[in-house]
Amino acid sequence: MSEIIDITTALSRLLKADRVLLICHKNPDGDTIGSAGALYHALKNLGKTVAVLCADPIPARYAYMDLTLYTGQFTPGYTVAVDVAGIQLFGDAIAEYTKDIDLCIDHHPSNPGYARSLLLDGEAAAAAEVVYELLVKAGIEITPTIADCLYTGISTDTGCFKFSSTTARTHEIAAKLIGAGAHLVSLNGILFESKSRSRIAIERIALESLEYSFDGRCATIFLTKEQIAQAGAETIDIEGITSLPRNIEGVEVGITIRQQPTGSYKVSVRTVPSVDAAAICAHLGGGGHRQAAGCELLGSLDNAKAALLAEVEQALCKG
Amino acid sequence: MSEIIDITTALSRLLKADRVLLICHKNPDGDTIGSAGALYHALKNLGKTVAVLCADPIPARYAYMDLTLYTGQFTPGYTVAVDVAGIQLFGDAIAEYTKDIDLCIDHHPSNPGYARSLLLDGEAAAAAEVVYELLVKAGIEITPTIADCLYTGISTDTGCFKFSSTTARTHEIAAKLIGAGAHLVSLNGILFESKSRSRIAIERIALESLEYSFDGRCATIFLTKEQIAQAGAETIDIEGITSLPRNIEGVEVGITIRQQPTGSYKVSVRTVPSVDAAAICAHLGGGGHRQAAGCELLGSLDNAKAALLAEVEQALCKG
Repeated sequence: MSEIIDITTALSRLLKADRVLLICHKNPDGDTIGSAGALYHALKNLGKTVAVLCADPIPARYAYMDLTLYTGQFTPGYTVAVDVAGIQLFGDAIAEYTKDIDLCIDHHPSNPGYARSLLLDGEAAAAAEVVYELLVKAGIEITPTIADCLYTGISTDTGCFKFSSTTARTHEIAAKLIGAGAHLVSLNGILFESKSRSRIAIERIALESLEYSFDGRCATIFLTKEQIAQAGAETIDIEGITSLPRNIEGVEVGITIRQQPTGSYKVSVRTVPSVDAAAICAHLGGGGHRQAAGCELLGSLDNAKAALLAEVEQALCKG
Repeated sequence: MSEIIDITTALSRLLKADRVLLICHKNPDGDTIGSAGALYHALKNLGKTVAVLCADPIPARYAYMDLTLYTGQFTPGYTVAVDVAGIQLFGDAIAEYTKDIDLCIDHHPSNPGYARSLLLDGEAAAAAEVVYELLVKAGIEITPTIADCLYTGISTDTGCFKFSSTTARTHEIAAKLIGAGAHLVSLNGILFESKSRSRIAIERIALESLEYSFDGRCATIFLTKEQIAQAGAETIDIEGITSLPRNIEGVEVGITIRQQPTGSYKVSVRTVPSVDAAAICAHLGGGGHRQAAGCELLGSLDNAKAALLAEVEQALCKG
């Protein structure tokens, strides 16, 4: 188990350290990269040797952070994991560097404490909020580039201030980052307005297949394995559209059915608070949370749909 | 021309007034309704008689504001226009009440000054920011309902903190409103996650017609008059999708062509900063801003497209 430390202690250890290796989680998102990016520039501005390591490539959209990736150019003297909720999220490709993490900075309450010391704020909407507090405490100047990194972490992890994790503090920090020169317009354009061509292609297929049931209280979209392959859609594109049917006005149950390469049907169910998604899926051998659940169905599409809609009808009656 | 007044003067007049009629602009959006809603509750809590007037119905999604609409229940003693940038935006249906406006509270720098007195902050991202400053100056308690109204105005007028009008002050006010009890999660769900069925229908048609040109640097969508009618799409649905083609990764020029009831083609052009949309449209008899312009074309669709793409090619070469 980690030693749980506060900002002051984390700070004194970071300021003493050199040859710092900042480690992101695999499939990196804006928060893990933005948090590492802010620390990278802050430590570099203090004259330290520092680099960023991630098991997967950093998406090109984050190029503005101007990071130096770790390619063995120094022997790490201090390793810091940022926004990595568990050791399994590092990725095997970088296992030699993740066995003995000195410090973990995180905001996931579930963090099991795999690092020697842990700076955790489970109330923070993003790891970047914790990094912001750390830099302010240190009196380190928030340059426009650091502000861009932190704004990226905070805005992406809150769906641009929409998710329930957003707090007054989140907005207060955003205000400070804008004051520090974050390039709001260009960042919001990159982070929130742009959709990949494969995402657009999969949305098109989804909307073509859209069917309403029960007077518009249920909406279902369906993707065949051939359509998914043809669209060049990646998992992230498909995960993204599972909220589409539920987000139509009047819809209480949104269903996404996607055919797997093996031919079975993977079903995602999203509901409004009054309807139990987990109950719908439980009767079909699946499970999940009250508003987001899933199951896998075999047989013909018509049979799968009929079984699903029978469960939906039950759930709508109870809801 | 209006007398230009400051917050203190506006406040003293409002506090002296009674039988206050708060007037929104036609086709009401979250800012005009939210600003009127916040003033409605603040003045009502001070014991005043007050009601809200709008030429068009208030959309059902704003029901949580719990407003009393004006139906002639009192003779107005003081009329206040909120977020109404010009007299033509009131709507003819309420003309008898809009000839002699006592106070206009606005954030549009172009406001011509049609009211007796004008409280204008052209730097504010929303009229609701001006109303917030007014209530704070008055020492009026920001109740959770007032916070909901103001959050609605600010978040909708900034595309949930994404548009270039968003400032540090916008986020600071959002932080205060959350602290005052704004129902962030429920509001964001209502305001930003839900799409109407007609909007979904028009997106489907748009994506089915999507064509890329110039190696994906230009994307075009096309809607026939029959498709628009069949989708039951309103102007607001169609305006909303004009940003769709430009927001695809790699696209520099996004074009929306919609056939008018008369058969002509209304063209909307949206571009990245490096490409001049106004120049594309100017050569076709239209005009507009650098990143958002439009024109109207006659003749066959193929000719219209060819003329447009020729201009796009020119603009891409210069960009």
